[in-house]
Amino acid sequence: MEINKKIGEALNSIKNKKPLVHHITNYVTINDCANITLALGGSPIMAEEKKEVEEMVSIVSALVLNIGELSERIVESMIIAGKKANELNIPVILDPVAVGATKYRSSVIKKFIKEIKFAVIRGNVSEIKAIAGIEGKTRGVDACSEDTLSKEENLIKAKKLAEELSKKLKTVIAITGEVDIISNGDKTYFIENGTELLSKVTGTGCMCTSLIGNYCGANKNYLLGALSGVATMGIAGEIAKENMLKKDAGIGTFKVELMDAIYKFSLKDIENRGNIYEK
Amino acid sequence: MEINKKIGEALNSIKNKKPLVHHITNYVTINDCANITLALGGSPIMAEEKKEVEEMVSIVSALVLNIGELSERIVESMIIAGKKANELNIPVILDPVAVGATKYRSSVIKKFIKEIKFAVIRGNVSEIKAIAGIEGKTRGVDACSEDTLSKEENLIKAKKLAEELSKKLKTVIAITGEVDIISNGDKTYFIENGTELLSKVTGTGCMCTSLIGNYCGANKNYLLGALSGVATMGIAGEIAKENMLKKDAGIGTFKVELMDAIYKFSLKDIENRGNIYEK
Amino acid sequence: MEINKKIGEALNSIKNKKPLVHHITNYVTINDCANITLALGGSPIMAEEKKEVEEMVSIVSALVLNIGELSERIVESMIIAGKKANELNIPVILDPVAVGATKYRSSVIKKFIKEIKFAVIRGNVSEIKAIAGIEGKTRGVDACSEDTLSKEENLIKAKKLAEELSKKLKTVIAITGEVDIISNGDKTYFIENGTELLSKVTGTGCMCTSLIGNYCGANKNYLLGALSGVATMGIAGEIAKENMLKKDAGIGTFKVELMDAIYKFSLKDIENRGNIYEK
Repeated sequence: MEINKKIGEALNSIKNKKPLVHHITNYVTINDCANITLALGGSPIMAEEKKEVEEMVSIVSALVLNIGELSERIVESMIIAGKKANELNIPVILDPVAVGATKYRSSVIKKFIKEIKFAVIRGNVSEIKAIAGIEGKTRGVDACSEDTLSKEENLIKAKKLAEELSKKLKTVIAITGEVDIISNGDKTYFIENGTELLSKVTGTGCMCTSLIGNYCGANKNYLLGALSGVATMGIAGEIAKENMLKKDAGIGTFKVELMDAIYKFSLKDIENRGNIYEK
Repeated sequence: MEINKKIGEALNSIKNKKPLVHHITNYVTINDCANITLALGGSPIMAEEKKEVEEMVSIVSALVLNIGELSERIVESMIIAGKKANELNIPVILDPVAVGATKYRSSVIKKFIKEIKFAVIRGNVSEIKAIAGIEGKTRGVDACSEDTLSKEENLIKAKKLAEELSKKLKTVIAITGEVDIISNGDKTYFIENGTELLSKVTGTGCMCTSLIGNYCGANKNYLLGALSGVATMGIAGEIAKENMLKKDAGIGTFKVELMDAIYKFSLKDIENRGNIYEK
Repeated sequence: MEINKKIGEALNSIKNKKPLVHHITNYVTINDCANITLALGGSPIMAEEKKEVEEMVSIVSALVLNIGELSERIVESMIIAGKKANELNIPVILDPVAVGATKYRSSVIKKFIKEIKFAVIRGNVSEIKAIAGIEGKTRGVDACSEDTLSKEENLIKAKKLAEELSKKLKTVIAITGEVDIISNGDKTYFIENGTELLSKVTGTGCMCTSLIGNYCGANKNYLLGALSGVATMGIAGEIAKENMLKKDAGIGTFKVELMDAIYKFSLKDIENRGNIYEK
């Protein structure tokens, strides 16, 4: 399929360009984000001191902001770095971890959206819903992932949410879950790859956002970047699960296999396993 | 044995309830603590910004405070979170890493004990001894783990230390070591599981405390929670060691196998290997 | 060879003395630095709060300062700890990560060099070049690793850089790369071990510096300490690569194998594989 081939080309451009991906991120998964960047073919930089983030961001290909663990100091650095990246036309990718869980997180995201233009925002459905809520009611907001709705109905509502928020914020929205939805407001893709085991390792969401940062750092098509990052994580998860099961092992082995699968990831994996379609 | 069955039931309640376990902890082992929580069946939250910890702690089942790496900022957040948890009757588990090594750590623990009521405190014998010392001389304090005493004599003294401190602070005390001692002042258990290899991976103490947090989050019996967490770590360590030796591997493999063993941990493991007795 | 035997003896002294190695380091690789210290036979301490670093450093055998992630708070603690270590004649090892990339990093290193005496500084050629640049032009500075020069010519220039900076700062300089150069100004060694895969895992530079910290904590010969740390990392990398390839695995497995190789590291490995020579 056409889209598989495009993801394969995006992957090759990472291998060729080795994009520098600047992360300002949480300390829970910072090591994994650096390692998955290296495994895919990029190069990580994790500087966060406000005195140096502008200079650092000036030499990179993409900036990933992840709010997994917040502090006043980090929020300030994120805004400085994000604005500088915007100025230099460097893509900024946002992972709004647990936004909606506390008022503080919501206020931080509100400020971010006011100050920074994002190339991609990746979150689960409740995080994306929370952002839409912060930004005022949209029709999709209060209606997705309801227990009373069928899976199909929930997907339709989540699609609407992604599309509306995407148009409103002029960014690509990636909602990851059992089925992933990636939209630039105009075109919307669904991905049916992945495994429940990805939710049994901390930071697979953060790592997915890092992968998107790598793709967006190497290619200026951010819809393709988001799509490629999410598809890569899902497919690598499937491979890791199979290898784990072959060894009759557990979740520690799964994480090692996940890194191995990202390191070896190729067009063939995408062609063999990719379940990606426009809808 | 009765106690094995109870631990098995406690384990099942984690799998069923998936307790949210809020950690404010050090950055050395924060990733491992999150992953071991997921592996056992709980769900980790690692927020630490004082502006949001009260709100965060309000939605969780247990709070783990670990002083491995301290800063003024973190200490302040820990106290806010701990007090809120007390207010809401959410169990607070303390890992007093390296207390006694510096005056600063002792002063922090002194403040904690004044401000926060703990469900469980888990440490090695010198940490627990240091806490008892902070709290004024008790007969057990200056007499355990002395080189001039036999192993049996040291155990008797450590048991007395655990019991006295437990009564004084109205908390469960878990002293981990070659033989683990868990006491609520009234009942005291010994556990003879584990392997020396656990001390060759950083953070197995922190991870043990996380396991206790999971058990206490799913069951209101904190003596059983401490016992179950310590026994789980010890037995998983034994399994990991055997698997490492089978592969003729080293400590990197041991850590992966440890996560695998926690992920697969079951009543059968406890029944086959548990060496837990009241004394 | 004589030098292999000396490294073997240095390794044994770590196993016997179990040196406490105090790190103030970045949060990206802090877990790996603690684990590699344990794997080699030392014992890690990662305290960084200014209120306690002086007391902490007073009980350790070596201090590792790594500027991978900076903040005002950490820089202040590093200087306090470094000065105290100097006072107590405890070796201080510096990893000047990415110095030269931002003005802030250069200013921090400038301050460090003014305030602290280092036993060893380990970096890649551009980091060491940047330090030499901060310290005023030396003949080697603006001439190493130029694309127009042959590998042999670049090595000669890097050797000159190491020797001159070593004399100037009265410290051992370790430049790691395809060929490693270790000099105390008087004697200079080359090491041709290692694998390109080491650059595909985040923090192998930081971990190498930790190994040097362990060796310097157990032996007062810092040239031998730097040499042993760098050689250990390179040789362990080769072993890990072979084991990874045997399993047809990827970079996740390589990292696990690296820890295993460090854990099992022995004189035999050095004798079988060491490619270390004075030049």
